[in-house]
Order: sequence, then C-alpha cells, then structure tokens
Amino acid sequence: MNPPLRIAIAGLGTVGVGVLKLLTEHAALLGQRCGREISVVAVSARDSARDRGIDLSGYRWVDRAIDLASDPEIDVIVELIGGADGVAKSLVEGSIGAGRSVVTANKALIAHHGSDLARAAEAAGVTLAFEAAVAGGIPILKAVRESLAGNRLTRVYGILNGTCNYILTTMQESGREFSDVLAEAQSLGYAEEDPSFDVDGIDAAHKLAILTSLAFGCTVNFDAVHVEGISDVSPIDIVFAEELGYRIKLLAIARETERGIEQRVHPCMVPLETPIAHVGGVFNAVVVEGDYVDRAVFEGRGAGAGPTASAVVADLVDIARGLKAPTFAVPAADLVHAVPAAMEYHQGPYYVRLQVVDRPGVMADIAAILRDESVSIESLLQRGRSPDEAVPVVLTMHNSEERSMNAALAKIDQLDTVLERPHLIRIEHL
Amino acid sequence: MNPPLRIAIAGLGTVGVGVLKLLTEHAALLGQRCGREISVVAVSARDSARDRGIDLSGYRWVDRAIDLASDPEIDVIVELIGGADGVAKSLVEGSIGAGRSVVTANKALIAHHGSDLARAAEAAGVTLAFEAAVAGGIPILKAVRESLAGNRLTRVYGILNGTCNYILTTMQESGREFSDVLAEAQSLGYAEEDPSFDVDGIDAAHKLAILTSLAFGCTVNFDAVHVEGISDVSPIDIVFAEELGYRIKLLAIARETERGIEQRVHPCMVPLETPIAHVGGVFNAVVVEGDYVDRAVFEGRGAGAGPTASAVVADLVDIARGLKAPTFAVPAADLVHAVPAAMEYHQGPYYVRLQVVDRPGVMADIAAILRDESVSIESLLQRGRSPDEAVPVVLTMHNSEERSMNAALAKIDQLDTVLERPHLIRIEHL
Repeated sequence: MNPPLRIAIAGLGTVGVGVLKLLTEHAALLGQRCGREISVVAVSARDSARDRGIDLSGYRWVDRAIDLASDPEIDVIVELIGGADGVAKSLVEGSIGAGRSVVTANKALIAHHGSDLARAAEAAGVTLAFEAAVAGGIPILKAVRESLAGNRLTRVYGILNGTCNYILTTMQESGREFSDVLAEAQSLGYAEEDPSFDVDGIDAAHKLAILTSLAFGCTVNFDAVHVEGISDVSPIDIVFAEELGYRIKLLAIARETERGIEQRVHPCMVPLETPIAHVGGVFNAVVVEGDYVDRAVFEGRGAGAGPTASAVVADLVDIARGLKAPTFAVPAADLVHAVPAAMEYHQGPYYVRLQVVDRPGVMADIAAILRDESVSIESLLQRGRSPDEAVPVVLTMHNSEERSMNAALAKIDQLDTVLERPHLIRIEHL
Repeated sequence: MNPPLRIAIAGLGTVGVGVLKLLTEHAALLGQRCGREISVVAVSARDSARDRGIDLSGYRWVDRAIDLASDPEIDVIVELIGGADGVAKSLVEGSIGAGRSVVTANKALIAHHGSDLARAAEAAGVTLAFEAAVAGGIPILKAVRESLAGNRLTRVYGILNGTCNYILTTMQESGREFSDVLAEAQSLGYAEEDPSFDVDGIDAAHKLAILTSLAFGCTVNFDAVHVEGISDVSPIDIVFAEELGYRIKLLAIARETERGIEQRVHPCMVPLETPIAHVGGVFNAVVVEGDYVDRAVFEGRGAGAGPTASAVVADLVDIARGLKAPTFAVPAADLVHAVPAAMEYHQGPYYVRLQVVDRPGVMADIAAILRDESVSIESLLQRGRSPDEAVPVVLTMHNSEERSMNAALAKIDQLDTVLERPHLIRIEHL
C-alpha cells in the first residue's frame, strides 16, 4: 500500500466536523478505493474548547491555521474557514506557495480569486479543488471538467441556492409572504441570521461565476454577474405564474452569446413542464447543455454537513488516487478574459405586474408606452373589477430587449394611474 | 505539448461515426483541455465501401479489427462493435493483453465479462473504460466511481432504457396499446427491428449489473438480475396507476439488503411526486443514494450518436490527461462475490389487476386466499358494474413478501370466476 495522504482540516464548523466523521467512519472503504489511507494529521479552528460533538483528542491541534501552510508533515490543506479574503485566502495562497494541495468549500474565495489561485497551483504542480463550493453534494464541477469535456457547452443554469428555493417553494405551497417564510426559515436553521447573502442572490452568483469559468474557459468574473434577489417576489406573482403555466425559481444562468458571456442570477418564471420547475425545497439542480450531450441534469442537496463532506472527500479521493485535471478544465494560464454581455441587450419574454387604478383609458396609456418602446404584449390579465379602486394587472411580453423594457417601465411608473413601482420577472423558456 | 494520444476506432455505426465527428470538430478544444492531441490513426469496420456520410480517407483502414490489438502505433482501442462475445471480446482481451487501453460502449460485454476484463486491465496497468455503456450521455459511472467515493451507497436505481421509457410515456399520453406503440417506435427508429433486448428488460439489466458492481464493490453478476419486460403493461394499468397516484416506469434497482445484493428490472408504479415519475420519452435517469450525499439524481439522453460519443470521448480525455481510477471503484482483484438476494424474499407493496366475473362472493374468495397467504389488502377498486359479465378489479397490497404474493396469485388464478392470469406490478416508494 502507498503511504497515507496526510491532510489537515482548517475550520471545524458543521462541514469540518462532517468531513472528520466521514473520514473516520469510512476509513477502510476509502483506503480500498484510494489504494492508500487518508490520514488527518492536524486540525485548526478558532476555539479549541468548544464542544463539537466529536472526539478531537487524536488530532494535533494547531491554533493558527496559517501555520499549517508550511507544515512539512501535511500533503493537503482542507480549507473550511470561509470568506473571500482574510485567513482563508492567506492559508490557501500560503499552502500553494509551499507546494501543498488545497481542497476548499469556499465559494466566495474562488469566485473572487479563483483564476489567480488556479494559476499559482498549476505553476506549483499542486491541486486546487473546490467541488463542495458549487451545489454541495451534486458533483457538477467534475462533470463539467471531465465528463462533458468532449462538448462545446452552450448554456449552464440551475437552482444554486437552497435557502431561496426553500422560501419560494414554501411561498408557493402556502401562499404566505416572503418576509414571513424567511423568518420561519431562519428559525429552522435553513437561513442565516443575516440572510442577505442568500436572498439577495450573492451566494448563487458566487457559484455561477465558478461554473461559468469551467464551462466556457474564461477567467472567473464575479463582478460581471447581473444579480437580483427574491425579496420582491410576492404571493400574487406566484399565483399568476401558475395560471400562466410557470413556476417562479431563482435561477443562475450562464450563456455564450454573440455579445459575450452572459451571467445572471434573478427570479425567473420557468415553464411547469421543465424538470427544474419541480425541484423543490432545499434541493439544488444544475442543467448543462452541450453540442453532443444535448442536455444533462444534475439534482441533489446543495448544502448541509453530509452532502458538503461528500464533495470535499471526493476531491481528497482524487488527490489520493493521483488524478489531476486542469482546475478550470483548461490550463489556468489559457483562461481568456471574456467580454461580459451587458444585461441591457438581453432579450427574452417578460412578466410585468402593475398596481393600477381601475379606470377607462389606463390600459390604453400603458399599451401606447409599450408600443413606443417596441415591446409587444403577449397577454394581459386583469382579475376582478373595482371601478376607481386599485387592481393588479399582469402583462406578459413577447421577446423584448431589456433596455426597451426598462425604458417602458420607467415611463409607466410615471403614470398617475399606476400606484406602485412595476414588478418585472423574466420568463425563461428552457 | 505532450505527444498525441493515438487511438483506433473499431466499429463505424452511428456511434463510431459520432465519435469521429466529435474528435474532428473539437480537435483544438480537446487539445487544450487534455494538453495533447487525440489523434485517430486507424479505423476498422466490416464494410469499407459503405457511405457513412463522413470522409474516412484520412484514416488508415484496417479490415480485421483484431489486428488493431497488436498494432504498436496505437495507444487506445475504441471498441464500438458490440456483442458480449465474438470479435468485440477478442479485440478487447487482445488489446489489454498487448498493453493497450480500451474504451468501449459495449454493455453486454461488460455485463458478462466486466470483472475479468477489469482484472486483466489492472494487472496490465492499462485502462478499461465504459462510461458510454450505461445511460449514454449521463456521466453516472464516473460519478459513482469518483464523485461519490466518500459514501457507502445504499441504493441505485433508474430508468436505463430509453426505448421502454418512450413506449410507456407514449402509452400513458395516448392511451394506446403496447404493441401499437412499439410498432410506431420501430418505424421512428426508437426501437430495433428485434425489440426483445429492449422491451424484455435485458438491455437495462446489462446496465444495472455494471452499476451494481461499481456501487457495491462486487463482481458484475448479470445472471443474478431479476428481469421482467414491459410487454404485459396494459393501458388500463396506466389509467389505474394515475388514479392511485402513480406512474408506470421500467426501473432498474440495485440495493444492499440483509439478504445480499438485490438486482431487479421490472415495471414499477412510482409515486407521481418523485422526480423519476416525470422523466419522459427517450430520456434516462439514475438516482444514487449514499449515507453522506443523501440523494443525487442524474438525467439526460441515454442513447443516440451525440450523447454516446460525448461519453466515449470523456473516457478518452481521462486517458489523455493520465487520470486512472480503479475500473469498478475498488481494485478489480478486491471485488467480492456478493450473495444475490433471492427475489422470492423481496418485500414491498403490490398492485394486482384481475379480470373477474361480476358475481357476489368473488371478492370474498379472493380476500380469503390473500388472508391465508398473509397478504394484506390496502385498497380495492372496481369500476362499473355488469352482473355476470367480465370486469376488471384492481387491488393494492401493503408490504408483502414476493413468495406469498406469488402463492396467492397462483391460487387466485385457479378460481373459476377469475378469467385471466392475474397481472402484478410492484409499487416502489422511492
């Protein structure tokens, strides 16, 4: 048998503890599958006294995570500290610089510094792996990097944030308001105390930026992602969506277009007959479209100690077996700086909900504005009548350009008969 | 750049031609992704004169595929001839024996000889890869072998035959008979002239046997698969299934039980709310359950030139990149001869459809037989009344043992008032 792969785990939150449990419980199985032992030789976290429900006495405790980087007894650093900068970044850079491979679940770090870190790792001849950073237990990064390597990919999209999907699914099933369901999700531990990273779409955007780089061979460009969260989605939108044959999902979408690489995260209406419409609760799903494979769909748990540990250990197994492919599917030095496709030129169908005064002539004013901006109405729904009262009106538009849509909505917002800022949700025909 | 990976393709049907097209069209992309060129140096097929819609003049033509095995100019043999024995087997054995790696899409060959071939390949230090043999474009073998290697898997199941899924989906949507839809599928090219491999479940069983070995670390044991096809499924069963909240799918299921490894392929009623119930047409899907990842679902095209070529080339990319993991996830020499779990001890709920004479006392006789065999009735449906005429009666049973169910049905079949052989479909709560 080959010598053991000696690893250190930095960060002992639920995922770090999950990785330790997995490695202990399946030591024999992993030894057989890898042809060598995966041996934890050191651990590091902020508080050594905290009870984590696991016996840590067998591991060497290191107070300062950064000290692991230069430890000659360690082959691989497992970074589970989190954060785009600070200790996590120093540790990962230091480890690579000292010739150690790194496995991380840190999506913020890779979304912000992934290309540079990959270049450093490849130059040093070590591995930088982060399967756990995108879609938790779903092995989507290896699928894109290896299994679909024979394809020119055309589009990658999915549900990449379980918290948002849980909230939207619960709103749909219960008819309750966003804020109410969010509070419940927080009390159940499905949403953080500060939920903005999740509900504002940032977390999904981090993951999308990583996926985009792998799929299209470009440097990771988080700043180019157009991001909108789910806090404006209202129960009435969900009801209208169902009536129109759609379900509302927070999608992350990356596409190669004639205008460059489009990356966007926002609420979408997706047709009820697509698989992604039926991915409920905390589950994640990713769809990859390629010229030979056509469409491949991957679904599973996007978070949680078990699924994330499964992904971290998959990366460790690759290293233990000596498997090494380019971090982002092509050598990091070859990643191109792709032109981002500006959102204002995005084209697609739209759903718009207006709160208007129920009075003759209102629809004529709105229709005239849309016509002037070359936006073509596909359908109009007004449920109920209450003369001179406020009523919701829903319109769907044929394929239109984002900037025309925005210009029209700005004008519509100025009408005296329109009582609230217009709500726009993009329709995606997947 | 490293020297090219020199490959030969044996078998130029639609898949072989698809692989050639992909390698030609994406030569530059693959060169970048692999760090070396994948170069086709020879091809072989039965008929060199046949027009395949592709220019073959640039490739060395070899009349006898077997001659490729000993060709010193070839690194990898791509075997796309097919068949469990004959030329395909000789070529694969010969290539491995001569120190050449093999990529194949041949499920019959691997289902019957996979463990022996893997042992030979690992002893020779070469790769034997067959991602394309199971679920076409869905990268399920790599997912189980590598991405889920941190898990003890508990169950693997899926829709592994697109022809059967197309037929069942069309029957469900149109209400037409099996034989009618099969004939249409044949005329559309979705089913072979001799459809028995597909509709009798053999093809799905080949794929399941391979998946089982990877998932549970046992030798490939095709003979242990319990196989039933879809030809007995009738439109009336599909209607009753919908009424009971199920859809009928041909599932392939492997499970680790206390009685050994259970492998079975047969029509199943699956709850409408499960993802697999919504996999329609020629699509395939595989669900893998593991102790850490929980549940991962993979869906895509299970056949066709493009998706199959995508999987073949993925294996070639692994070889070109120097990635090598054990063929069946653990070293082939370690694969255990698992005890097959006998089907007679299988436990689960059942659906039974009877054609009976509508006469007082019939149900009492049937109920008494079920009681005597300890089979407990969950529901009974009789639609319409026609005294002394034949009517269908549908029963669903609580969890029961297969042998009790069979014994009861044998007795029920003997009743004068039962006019047709009872139809049994297993219910799967997934």
